[in-house]
Amino acid sequence: MPGPVQSIERAAAILRLLAASQGRLGAGEIAGSLGLARGTAHGILRTLERVGFVERDDGSGKYQLGAALLHLGTSYLDVNELRSRAINWADALASRSGEAVRIGTLLEGRVLVVHHVFRPDDTLQAMDVGTLLPLHATALGKALLAHDANAAASIRDTVLEPYCRRTITEPRALARAATRVRESGWAAEVEELSIGEAGIAAPIRGHGGLVVGAIGISGAVERVCDASRVPEPRLVAFVRDAARAVSRDLGGSRW
Amino acid sequence: MPGPVQSIERAAAILRLLAASQGRLGAGEIAGSLGLARGTAHGILRTLERVGFVERDDGSGKYQLGAALLHLGTSYLDVNELRSRAINWADALASRSGEAVRIGTLLEGRVLVVHHVFRPDDTLQAMDVGTLLPLHATALGKALLAHDANAAASIRDTVLEPYCRRTITEPRALARAATRVRESGWAAEVEELSIGEAGIAAPIRGHGGLVVGAIGISGAVERVCDASRVPEPRLVAFVRDAARAVSRDLGGSRW
Repeated sequence: MPGPVQSIERAAAILRLLAASQGRLGAGEIAGSLGLARGTAHGILRTLERVGFVERDDGSGKYQLGAALLHLGTSYLDVNELRSRAINWADALASRSGEAVRIGTLLEGRVLVVHHVFRPDDTLQAMDVGTLLPLHATALGKALLAHDANAAASIRDTVLEPYCRRTITEPRALARAATRVRESGWAAEVEELSIGEAGIAAPIRGHGGLVVGAIGISGAVERVCDASRVPEPRLVAFVRDAARAVSRDLGGSRW
Repeated sequence: MPGPVQSIERAAAILRLLAASQGRLGAGEIAGSLGLARGTAHGILRTLERVGFVERDDGSGKYQLGAALLHLGTSYLDVNELRSRAINWADALASRSGEAVRIGTLLEGRVLVVHHVFRPDDTLQAMDVGTLLPLHATALGKALLAHDANAAASIRDTVLEPYCRRTITEPRALARAATRVRESGWAAEVEELSIGEAGIAAPIRGHGGLVVGAIGISGAVERVCDASRVPEPRLVAFVRDAARAVSRDLGGSRW
C-alpha cells in the first residue's frame, strides 16, 4: 500500500487555510501558519495557481482560492446521491411547511449544506449550499450527531461556541439532547444558532440503515413553534415524512 | 524558483477527470485515462480521500468527488470580488428586466457562472452557479471572448460544438461576431445554446479597464427579442447599465 502523498496533503492544508481566512494571504503567512519552509510553500502555491485552485493578486502578491474549485465543488453536487434522491422531497417539504429546507451531511465535525430550498415566498434569501453549520447549535447537526459516534467524538473535546443565550454549550447537556433525538427520531433548535429562528430536522438513512445525512426546515420561531416554544407537531410530522421518504429511496428505510 | 509539484498537478488532473465523468471511476480507469502507473494513481487517490477531496464507494471501490471540495468551491465565492461587487446590481437587473441574471468569468476556455439570480417569478429554476457554459454559444461567452485574446486563442483550434441550428460553429463567423461585440459593447445569443432561449450580455471591466467578467440576462426568445428576433433595445440598455455600474464599482469604468 503506498503511503499518503505529502505534497498533496500540504496543498489541501493550504486550501483549507485560505477558505478559513476568508481573504487573501501572502506566501510567508501561509508558510508560517502551516510550519512549512518558504520555498516549499512557494512551490505548492505556484502549482496550485497553475491548476486554477488558487489565484494570485498581481498588486499585493497575495493568494486566494481559485475559480477551478467552484466548478469542482458544484460537480460534487451532481454526483452526490443523497442530494439527487432528496431534491424532489425537499421541494415538497418546502411547499407543505412553507419554510426553507436544507439537507446536510457531516464534514469535519460540522454540517455541510448540500441542498437548500428557499422559503416559498418572494423574500430575498441567500443560498447556503456549501456552508458549514455547527453540529451542536442546529437541528440538522443534532440529528447527525445523535447517530454518528465519530461526529459525537469529534466535538467531545472542542469548545461548544455559544451563538445565542440558548445554545447548548455543556457537553453533558448535548449528550442528553442526542439521546432524546435518538429516542424521538427528530431534532429541534429553538433560538440556538440565531435569535428568532427555529428548526426541525430528522436523520436520513442510507444502505443498511446508516445515517448519511439529515433534512430539516427552519424559519421564524413564532411560525415553527407554538406559544410555549415547542415545535409544531404538524411540522415535525412533515419533516419526519420527508426524511423517511428519502431514506426509502436510498434503500435505508426500515419502515 | 521552484518547479511545479508533479503530484499536485496529477491530483488536479484526477479531480478534473472525475468532474468531467459525472460519475464514479475505478482506480484502474483513472490511471489508464491519465497515463499513470496504477500504484501512482492509487497513492494519489488515497491521499485525496484522506483530505476529503474524493470519496470511495465501499461497494464498488470506485471514486467520486468529495464533500470538502463543495465547501472550498463556495468559499471561493466569498472572496470573489467581481461577485461581491455585482450582487446588488444583479438583483436590480433581474427586477428591471424580469429575467434571470448570470455573472460569468473565464475558466479554461469556458464561462464559469459565479452568480445567478432567478427570474423573478415563482417557477422552479435550477441554480447554475459553478456551471461551465460554452464561449461560442452564449451571450456571456461572446462578451468575454471579444475582449480576451487568450480566450479567443484557446478556442481557435477547438471544434465549435453545435447546440442548436443557429449555434455559430464557423471560426470566421465567430471572429466577426466578436468584432461586432467590441464595436457595439454588448453580445447576444438567440437560440444558439437552447431552442426558445435568448440572452444579452455585456463585459465587466476591472482595474485598468481589463475585462474580468460579464453580466447578462436570459429568457424566452419571445420576451427577450422583438418579432424579427432582435434583442429588445430596452433590455440591452438595462444590461449595459448594470455592466457599467459593476465596472465603476470595480474601478474599471471609463465612462
